[in-house]
Amino acid sequence: MKPIAHFAPGPSQLYFTVEDHMREAFRNGIPSMAHRSKEFEAIFRSATDGLKALLSIPPGFHVFFAASATEIWERAVQNLVLEKSFHLVNGAFSKRFYEISRQLGKSSEKIEVPLGQGFHGKIEIPPAVEMIGITHNETSTGAALTMDFINQFSAANPNALVVVDAVSSLPYPSFDYSKIDAVFFSVQKGFGLPAGLGVWVVNDRCVAKAENLLAKGHGIGTYHSLPFYLQNARKNQTPETPNVLGIYLLAKVVEDFLRKGVHTLRKETEYKAAILYQAIETHPLLSAFVKDKNSQSKTVIVADCGEHTVQVANALHRVGIHPGDGYGELKKSQLRFANFPAHSKEQYELLVDTLEKIN
Amino acid sequence: MKPIAHFAPGPSQLYFTVEDHMREAFRNGIPSMAHRSKEFEAIFRSATDGLKALLSIPPGFHVFFAASATEIWERAVQNLVLEKSFHLVNGAFSKRFYEISRQLGKSSEKIEVPLGQGFHGKIEIPPAVEMIGITHNETSTGAALTMDFINQFSAANPNALVVVDAVSSLPYPSFDYSKIDAVFFSVQKGFGLPAGLGVWVVNDRCVAKAENLLAKGHGIGTYHSLPFYLQNARKNQTPETPNVLGIYLLAKVVEDFLRKGVHTLRKETEYKAAILYQAIETHPLLSAFVKDKNSQSKTVIVADCGEHTVQVANALHRVGIHPGDGYGELKKSQLRFANFPAHSKEQYELLVDTLEKIN
Repeated sequence: MKPIAHFAPGPSQLYFTVEDHMREAFRNGIPSMAHRSKEFEAIFRSATDGLKALLSIPPGFHVFFAASATEIWERAVQNLVLEKSFHLVNGAFSKRFYEISRQLGKSSEKIEVPLGQGFHGKIEIPPAVEMIGITHNETSTGAALTMDFINQFSAANPNALVVVDAVSSLPYPSFDYSKIDAVFFSVQKGFGLPAGLGVWVVNDRCVAKAENLLAKGHGIGTYHSLPFYLQNARKNQTPETPNVLGIYLLAKVVEDFLRKGVHTLRKETEYKAAILYQAIETHPLLSAFVKDKNSQSKTVIVADCGEHTVQVANALHRVGIHPGDGYGELKKSQLRFANFPAHSKEQYELLVDTLEKIN
Repeated sequence: MKPIAHFAPGPSQLYFTVEDHMREAFRNGIPSMAHRSKEFEAIFRSATDGLKALLSIPPGFHVFFAASATEIWERAVQNLVLEKSFHLVNGAFSKRFYEISRQLGKSSEKIEVPLGQGFHGKIEIPPAVEMIGITHNETSTGAALTMDFINQFSAANPNALVVVDAVSSLPYPSFDYSKIDAVFFSVQKGFGLPAGLGVWVVNDRCVAKAENLLAKGHGIGTYHSLPFYLQNARKNQTPETPNVLGIYLLAKVVEDFLRKGVHTLRKETEYKAAILYQAIETHPLLSAFVKDKNSQSKTVIVADCGEHTVQVANALHRVGIHPGDGYGELKKSQLRFANFPAHSKEQYELLVDTLEKIN
């Protein structure tokens, strides 16, 4: 049976408007469009202004495009850290951000908690940390952080830049942009688009840090250094020939999201998360991997299925629902469910009904 | 009038099969495909094996995917150069490769000739050069290098890696892979695809150089280091979530090119180039920017139009042909014509007929 719903947390299901936008792109010659043309500049502006409106990003922040969130991990360390960053690690992806900083030769540090846990309370950051890397939503385990937790770092560490990985949570979370310096995501998750584009939102403090490193003779990369990004973005352009089609589709889906309203998107996300956690927690064969309610992600929901994993997955496949496997060592004992705007309430209700019939 | 033909040298006209391949991609769920799945591995293998067949790439070479050729300039220097590269500069793009090496802190050197010229004869490379950066086809001016010229470097400089930028010439040139160590291109030019993917072909000597730098404690980047590329490519995977759709479309267009035959593609390229150079050189208002026949690119043909540039461009627009502007300071006095597989003989004949009527 052809899947009716892809619940893997990325690349995930396309938002329902994407195929029509792609057809229109071809009709309008977008794939052949010159990236130094006025037409491209209008698309760039539409995507970046749209994102600023959708996510309530205030003045003083800029929107830059990379190839992937993986690239942004590397560029963030390259542009923002001379010697030391600090990372909150609770899964494979937050760990990779830390590892990339070490691979780039930084003497970075981390605090690590077991898989399935989030972070709570006050975290002491060592002195001389230049960047604090925080993964809002750990895609591998479904553990998320609260806004109150994230907001503690800025005032307590005025010399550090607070950089938030929101790869698999945006557009759901409503960040307080006075408490963070950068946030990034990739479009194949919450924005329901084909993979191949990362989006990096940075404030002027980040740009100033990169300029300062450069002025002191330290390397910050070439075409994707923050100053060069900004120099091009001021003209609504990119440093290199970008994924023009990806930026066009992002602009179009952001328009769709704005038309629907971010408040509605967020309420629907919460409704769908509530019915799925309820179904998992009351199920005889399943349990939520993340036990602490405050750490349960709304956008990537992970069920411990133990020896019943294949049985549950097969029952879902039979109704056309494709869940994601557990990540890494948990591949055979868990299932992961993305809860993105592309996943309709009706699909979630079918998912929950189907789970309830398994016993 | 909607353009019937985009002759700008990239992003350029789509190959005529691309829109159908895109529709099929959506029908088959490619945009939601997991990049760690068996299905993606088959696409990766199809794209890389197809390219090896199309371009007669021998064993000992690997095909890796980047976001752009701009990225590959940076990755090449990062992975292959500790102290010094040497660059042949004859235009904006060959110069950018050199500049990126300087920005990365290398004490790189260059030989530079005026715009519109190629290189000839024996080039002495300074000792201790680790990488020789050669731009086969300078997109900004339409100057190309001969194979004999490119093939001189390998034997004369056995300790240097010969890295060829063929961004706007492949699949036309037939390289002797025993004489070069790496070649790269981006898909929005000769392959007629939407922008957002660079392709980097490297041999084992390049991988060994990167491994050697790493073993000595030098940074070679993180997710796009050559050893990590290779570790993933051995599984037919990519280090990060890639532009899956872009790789799929590349695989499909390479299949189309193989079906047509690279010999036919090359013969058609030569026919189209011959009739356009003939039209330009016999035209009362036009002349070829590249005077030396041996340096005239077959794939990016540049006409000096002087004060007649607007008149010529307007006449072409009236029949639906969109030429590319001259590059940089030559924007207002030249027109550039891409001659890629996407540009049909009929379109070239219309272009030539239209030029001949202008006087």
